[in-house]
Amino acid sequence: MIIRIDMTTKEIKKQAVPKKYALLGGRGLTSRMILDEVNPLCNPLGPGNKVIIASGLLGGSAAPCSGRLSIGAKSPLTGGIKESNGGGTAAVKLSKIGIKALVVEGQPEEDKLYLLKVTPEGVELLPADELKGKGNYETVKILKQKYGNNYSILSIGPAGERGYSMASIAITDMEGNPSRHCGRGGMGAVLGSKKIKAVLIDDKGTRGVTYKKDEKEFKRIAREWSKTLIQTKAILTNFGTANLVTPMNALGVLPTKNFSTGCFENAEKISGEHLRELLEQRGGAYGHPCHPGCVIRCSNVFKDENGEYVTSALEYETIGLLGANCGIGNLDLVARLDRFCDDFGIDTMELGVTIGVVMESGMISFGDEKGVMQLIEELEKDSIMGKLIGQGAAVTGRVLGVQRVPSVKGQGISSYDPRALKGTGVTYATSPMGADHTAGNCLPGRKGYRPETMKDFDVTEAEGQWELSKDLQLMTAVCDYCGLCFFVGPTWENMEIISQLINARYGCSLSKDDVIALAKQLIKTEVEFNLRAGIPQSANGLPEFFYREKLGPKELTFDISEERLQRIFDNL
Amino acid sequence: MIIRIDMTTKEIKKQAVPKKYALLGGRGLTSRMILDEVNPLCNPLGPGNKVIIASGLLGGSAAPCSGRLSIGAKSPLTGGIKESNGGGTAAVKLSKIGIKALVVEGQPEEDKLYLLKVTPEGVELLPADELKGKGNYETVKILKQKYGNNYSILSIGPAGERGYSMASIAITDMEGNPSRHCGRGGMGAVLGSKKIKAVLIDDKGTRGVTYKKDEKEFKRIAREWSKTLIQTKAILTNFGTANLVTPMNALGVLPTKNFSTGCFENAEKISGEHLRELLEQRGGAYGHPCHPGCVIRCSNVFKDENGEYVTSALEYETIGLLGANCGIGNLDLVARLDRFCDDFGIDTMELGVTIGVVMESGMISFGDEKGVMQLIEELEKDSIMGKLIGQGAAVTGRVLGVQRVPSVKGQGISSYDPRALKGTGVTYATSPMGADHTAGNCLPGRKGYRPETMKDFDVTEAEGQWELSKDLQLMTAVCDYCGLCFFVGPTWENMEIISQLINARYGCSLSKDDVIALAKQLIKTEVEFNLRAGIPQSANGLPEFFYREKLGPKELTFDISEERLQRIFDNL
Repeated sequence: MIIRIDMTTKEIKKQAVPKKYALLGGRGLTSRMILDEVNPLCNPLGPGNKVIIASGLLGGSAAPCSGRLSIGAKSPLTGGIKESNGGGTAAVKLSKIGIKALVVEGQPEEDKLYLLKVTPEGVELLPADELKGKGNYETVKILKQKYGNNYSILSIGPAGERGYSMASIAITDMEGNPSRHCGRGGMGAVLGSKKIKAVLIDDKGTRGVTYKKDEKEFKRIAREWSKTLIQTKAILTNFGTANLVTPMNALGVLPTKNFSTGCFENAEKISGEHLRELLEQRGGAYGHPCHPGCVIRCSNVFKDENGEYVTSALEYETIGLLGANCGIGNLDLVARLDRFCDDFGIDTMELGVTIGVVMESGMISFGDEKGVMQLIEELEKDSIMGKLIGQGAAVTGRVLGVQRVPSVKGQGISSYDPRALKGTGVTYATSPMGADHTAGNCLPGRKGYRPETMKDFDVTEAEGQWELSKDLQLMTAVCDYCGLCFFVGPTWENMEIISQLINARYGCSLSKDDVIALAKQLIKTEVEFNLRAGIPQSANGLPEFFYREKLGPKELTFDISEERLQRIFDNL
Repeated sequence: MIIRIDMTTKEIKKQAVPKKYALLGGRGLTSRMILDEVNPLCNPLGPGNKVIIASGLLGGSAAPCSGRLSIGAKSPLTGGIKESNGGGTAAVKLSKIGIKALVVEGQPEEDKLYLLKVTPEGVELLPADELKGKGNYETVKILKQKYGNNYSILSIGPAGERGYSMASIAITDMEGNPSRHCGRGGMGAVLGSKKIKAVLIDDKGTRGVTYKKDEKEFKRIAREWSKTLIQTKAILTNFGTANLVTPMNALGVLPTKNFSTGCFENAEKISGEHLRELLEQRGGAYGHPCHPGCVIRCSNVFKDENGEYVTSALEYETIGLLGANCGIGNLDLVARLDRFCDDFGIDTMELGVTIGVVMESGMISFGDEKGVMQLIEELEKDSIMGKLIGQGAAVTGRVLGVQRVPSVKGQGISSYDPRALKGTGVTYATSPMGADHTAGNCLPGRKGYRPETMKDFDVTEAEGQWELSKDLQLMTAVCDYCGLCFFVGPTWENMEIISQLINARYGCSLSKDDVIALAKQLIKTEVEFNLRAGIPQSANGLPEFFYREKLGPKELTFDISEERLQRIFDNL
């Protein structure tokens, strides 16, 4: 079923899933509902926007890594359509209750906060003014004291309440900490504009999801796939995503000092290897799953020198952007910043790019750790400088007069320099999501699904990267609509496995081409929304300095023509 | 000829006018050259943008009111194409020297300021570092001391040097004061990004412009037209544009307190009638021409209580937006603010809309005169708050969390509420220039050129306003490419006169349909640039609150469908 919560009238309605949405889930469902129901020209923080919260097509099933939660809305950061997905415990519970989507719409006139309680018995809206201004950690603590430990909790921090465009939505992890985030695109600000501080979800008494066709077969495939993933993804299990720091630095891809070089002199100090050492020394954890059913387990738990919990999941993107990109070679500081972001409720990536831009302006220097902590204070205080940073890199760059602003469609670029990782550059330039590596990350060794892209490319060369990005954007969209972590691999082989799982669960008979066709439909939906929102394909491009400034000893520039970027989705 | 100044290499080149530009001038030429030469995705303040300075097709001629100067570039305020035109003495001199356009391109690497000296003998680039940080009034004073009084001077203030998106370019008036401004769209920031502080233009020794066909006939038509204008525009001569305050307030069109009502309780104190009284009492001037050859003479010279010069041309838009829109019923304060804007080099309109938005945020109250002066100090100091305001209403609203932001495509709305003056609302929503009344202002009594629009409309009703706006946008574009002040009237009768004048001057045989056809071409050029810059026609719309909040006793909303707004230029 679909549950609609109208925040203007406070009415809550159950709705049977319309037939047209039956085979949609995750990003597939959020983007479709946004196109169907949200005026593309609406104010993202006004009553016309909607927050759609949905688990994926395989959510709650025995499929490995299928517990990602998609949250979609028109983004206050990009002005376009957005889906941001995260791990944690919520998606599985929603699926088990049988809720395909929670739709939060309208807007209260009164300045009061609410929380939404979701159980198999029903959905309730409760007052939550006592949580005003509280960070996610305290919010979760208070809610657990009041409602017990069974709930998975989505929540927003002060940033979401204030409408900062970099505000995230936290999801509690398996230990009950608000450490998993739908970080990108300001979804927290949209939920905050609806005055929803938190969503509590408990699935007690439910029996688990149903399989229309062949539960045994589903579980057999899932088991086999899990085995393969456990074997092939050992590097993620052992070093987490931070394993990328060393190879990306070696390739010249690691954004350093506001994307001015791709090699950081202190890369070793923030490497996955060093992180692993610290985790071991201090009794932290690695090989830690971010959601139930995750077999890759790339997450970690970071502790300080005294063995006290700091944060969970210190990730490559956070380390790259709050570390190297700010000239900071100090994992303890990056971990404290990560904890701050999780608690305050903002995207670590957008903050890292934004601080890099502030450093570029000369207001503080690259590597100035004290200066960074002062900026954090400005955010906490909600000063003008804090409000400015809260709007992200593009707005901050404009106000501070910085010309080198690494963002696309208003969203900060992820932790890969597009001049040296050109396929990912194509994804940044063309994804309806704005600069977003998770929309199709063309790392070395990644392959597409067409013969000409089923080979290894030199990632620093333009050849083949446009095609590869297009393929990976489609196959990643498949993961996103299934609720699968894209670390299972957006690969042609996996499309086969995914089609079999969907068929076994839903009693249909999709081929792997069919699952790709659904992804094409999904991207078209998003492209159409963006066009109507005033963001045409002709806006596809990277910031000028990537075309002009040379990177590293190979003197790389981004050399894939704007015309090709603008036509990538012409004949989907 | 066309003069190109490359600020990267400091080379200055003369170029014969290409045939395709022969019948283009003013906005027609600036927009065409921008489409031909500027990458629409370039950074507006980077080396890829160009500033095109051009007088109109009738510039320097005996045609009345033909001395407007067009300045065009990709706008840092809207991200799209921009032309902003102003009076003053420069356009006539450029025409007399025979310069069709000055094109400033590239960007110096060094942080030094330059000035450009233009005479019939040639064009020189000179150092101007001693003018750094100086206001327009002081800049002009220093330049006159150094170079004498013969020059017409274009200049930028601190705002343009700093890259504020609301930065204007000043043009000296007939008394030598920098009081005429190409205000809209941040042209001053683009000139500042090229490190040009000032342009000096002297036409001494030139004989005036040539008439290819029939000088006598040209002058006869011009003389007759002047007579008609003097007779029919007496209200502008007597009360200036401020004559509009009283009728706009009566109609409920005068934006008051951030467009929350259309009637200002203190309208009388800022009315054209009261202004005229003050001008008379204090020895100011009215019926004052803003450029040589102006016969309408709507400008004025405002003096303070001691009879000291404060500013020239206190205009309706300034009074409406810095006055009523900020809840300020005090002409002396508005005049001081106007002087500040002229000196600091910013658009009075964008500042008025932005201060209204700051007031809406609650940071200061509507009507708080002291608070306004503090904001001015922030601008002067270049504090974070100052930098923020300098970026205009849209960015300020976003950072301060204000939902009611009256701007379109990033540019603040002029001093007419679009709910009560619906045709002008159509112009705001659809003009490639962003919200801009001068692109086609549908005041009561204005008529179009098609039979169905050649009648009076109720300006508060939707009927006929879409058609009227379209017609007026075209006929205004004709004025803009001729260098004619649009107060001559974008009327069907005037299209006939204008075609005769063009024919007599250039030896061609355009009909009035032909001059409209040139305007269609011009708008198409701009629409195409904007599409390529990522601003499609689907972005045409007004801020949400104009559709939702009711205005005045008639409970007016803006009720012209977004679909129609998006299709207005479909079949030009």
